[in-house]
Amino acid sequence: MLKGNLIFGQSGGPTSVINSSAAGIILEAREHSDMITKIYGAHYGIVGILEEDFFDLTAEDKVEIKLLRQTPSSFLGSCRYKLTDPEVDDSDYARILEVFRKYDIRYFLYNGGNDSMDTCFKIGRYLKEHDYECRVIGVPKTIDNDLAITDHCPGYGSAARYVATTIMELYQDATVYNSGQITIVEVMGRNAGWLTAASALALEKGAGPDLIYLPERVFEPERVIEDTARIYSRQNKVIICVSEGVRTADGKYLTEMAGQVQTDAFGHKQMGGTAEVLSRLINEKLPTKIRAIEFSLMQRSAAHLASRRDVDDSFTAGAEAVLAALRGETEVMIGFKRPEKGLYRTDLVSIPLKEVANTEKKVPLEMISKDGNGIESSFLDYARPLIYGRPDLVLEDSLPRFAKLKLVRAGKRA
Amino acid sequence: MLKGNLIFGQSGGPTSVINSSAAGIILEAREHSDMITKIYGAHYGIVGILEEDFFDLTAEDKVEIKLLRQTPSSFLGSCRYKLTDPEVDDSDYARILEVFRKYDIRYFLYNGGNDSMDTCFKIGRYLKEHDYECRVIGVPKTIDNDLAITDHCPGYGSAARYVATTIMELYQDATVYNSGQITIVEVMGRNAGWLTAASALALEKGAGPDLIYLPERVFEPERVIEDTARIYSRQNKVIICVSEGVRTADGKYLTEMAGQVQTDAFGHKQMGGTAEVLSRLINEKLPTKIRAIEFSLMQRSAAHLASRRDVDDSFTAGAEAVLAALRGETEVMIGFKRPEKGLYRTDLVSIPLKEVANTEKKVPLEMISKDGNGIESSFLDYARPLIYGRPDLVLEDSLPRFAKLKLVRAGKRA
Repeated sequence: MLKGNLIFGQSGGPTSVINSSAAGIILEAREHSDMITKIYGAHYGIVGILEEDFFDLTAEDKVEIKLLRQTPSSFLGSCRYKLTDPEVDDSDYARILEVFRKYDIRYFLYNGGNDSMDTCFKIGRYLKEHDYECRVIGVPKTIDNDLAITDHCPGYGSAARYVATTIMELYQDATVYNSGQITIVEVMGRNAGWLTAASALALEKGAGPDLIYLPERVFEPERVIEDTARIYSRQNKVIICVSEGVRTADGKYLTEMAGQVQTDAFGHKQMGGTAEVLSRLINEKLPTKIRAIEFSLMQRSAAHLASRRDVDDSFTAGAEAVLAALRGETEVMIGFKRPEKGLYRTDLVSIPLKEVANTEKKVPLEMISKDGNGIESSFLDYARPLIYGRPDLVLEDSLPRFAKLKLVRAGKRA
Repeated sequence: MLKGNLIFGQSGGPTSVINSSAAGIILEAREHSDMITKIYGAHYGIVGILEEDFFDLTAEDKVEIKLLRQTPSSFLGSCRYKLTDPEVDDSDYARILEVFRKYDIRYFLYNGGNDSMDTCFKIGRYLKEHDYECRVIGVPKTIDNDLAITDHCPGYGSAARYVATTIMELYQDATVYNSGQITIVEVMGRNAGWLTAASALALEKGAGPDLIYLPERVFEPERVIEDTARIYSRQNKVIICVSEGVRTADGKYLTEMAGQVQTDAFGHKQMGGTAEVLSRLINEKLPTKIRAIEFSLMQRSAAHLASRRDVDDSFTAGAEAVLAALRGETEVMIGFKRPEKGLYRTDLVSIPLKEVANTEKKVPLEMISKDGNGIESSFLDYARPLIYGRPDLVLEDSLPRFAKLKLVRAGKRA
């Protein structure tokens, strides 16, 4: 029996439901005050731990914690800080160990995507190597849905519901005039096209894109222009859904072709502008009205359009992370398993962090149409249950009521 | 007592609720089959009338008509066709009269904004001059909220609720990192800033823009950069909400500065890209991460975020247009009047078309802060009731269930 304090952090890009996992963590941890004395939240993820900047969440109001279920983004703040490689320089790790000792942290939960699971994995290994007993658990989140092994990632279902709903609404708008129009919608997804593929859920309802391009297939501008021209000549309206991460045969993003790319701290290329570049490419050959639309930050923060199942999954993953830690598990990520057959059901599983760290799960090629411009029904069967249900939102003056937490800074220990 | 057929059309840019007005028109007209024999819907607005291309809506399924209340855009299709000036060339009007005679149209209802009310006005005058008895009623719609005399326009409340809700969600996302970030959100509004001002409803909830710029005030890039730099130096995050229609002292749109403007059939400049241009201007002086976001077509088609009051107002305006016509009114637009004092209430009024045609109602300067970068509370008092209530949406597989109409083409008469 391991007694001590718990700290958790939120990392990487926001989703609509990362705070729902936080609510699950906090509420579950409170049920075990015999083992978990204090519940800390790291300000700006791992940076808050390095800087001893955290909040004491032990006494936050329960009603407000529950409202985290409908509050998008990360209430603790996030970061894109990459820890040094421990083989080269372990000073960040030594500092984390120092802070954990000082605050008697025995439970460390980290909520994030691929990079965060890698961070988690390396911290767990370091602590073990230094004989510091601490349970390290990863809680998944990413709208990209690209974490390995788990059936799906918290955050994806809500973003997918946003994409499908919004495309359906745009379809109504983008086809309204008697004049010709091409509409290009850009969806997030650097290497994995799961979120862009969700636009096919709108197509199934008769109000979706004519063409869908994912990063899993080489993007051939000439063929895309041909596809577009063919459909345009038939129906004088074309709706294209394209992942920000599509690359041409030489491995270049469309925005690189136009020289617009920036790079973040992880060396990831910062996307955006793909629809704009594509609209220019198409317009050169097909001079008609073209509108480029980016779902931008809305697709990952539209909590009002969350999938209720995703909100619940996220909450459950947070709560289960606490329970797994209390059971003695460590260096695992909480994941989801879907039974092979029958009605959709969520089974929770613990997946060793080393198996998920820095691995990306892409859309299987068999879910993409032979021509590379559409989505197969196997994807729809996969995705449909994940966007299930609307959240039961608390509103105030007809606007979202976000959680208002006291966010009391934890006193610094000597 | 005037007996005959009714035709209505939908015109101009879509809103979330233009179809709710259609539902009001159809359902009310059905109640008066003693006076109104057939209910026609013009395909692509006035173009459908000129081309005798319309649908017979008399026998559409009532359940589907009710679903129009949650179906965004214009189910009949819209147009931006501008009738010729009758003083110069009245051939379009002569054609309309010919069609109206042929189909015994005695009730003509047209749903649209400024240009449509002008169209309506001219048609009404022409028919009267040619002794053809026909009741001509305008039904207002525009997310721009810029129609004269009426307290507000159907379409505005829903778009405003979209803007306020989405800004609140973006605020959570755009302030999440420990690093600096400037977020610029572009909202529709060519000459009137009503919709951009709605972002102040988010500010009231503690999650809104730091700076708001409307087209009613001259846009001074130097001052905007100063405003931004001052706030950035204090809090390292700035959220700016800017109307697409802001203009510099020489009357130029920001996109004109960058040479990106196109013009539509009405000679209106096609906007878009204002946030992008502004982000470049600011970035030259303030080298930090800047994200430009356009609410694009989403702000006018997000029926899932409609204001229930707006849906109801739109429906009522449609129904009242039928009743006004039956009462013998003509050449009027149905509008809303708000009692000076007390609880918000909607009173319907008939406004002579000649008073609204081609007149724009802008945001009064006293609703804009002295510095021109914020919104006064008098606007909030005005706007709050208009975004009231969430619509009671029918979903199918957790996605919107849009109306599925049979859309039977009316047989052409000899």
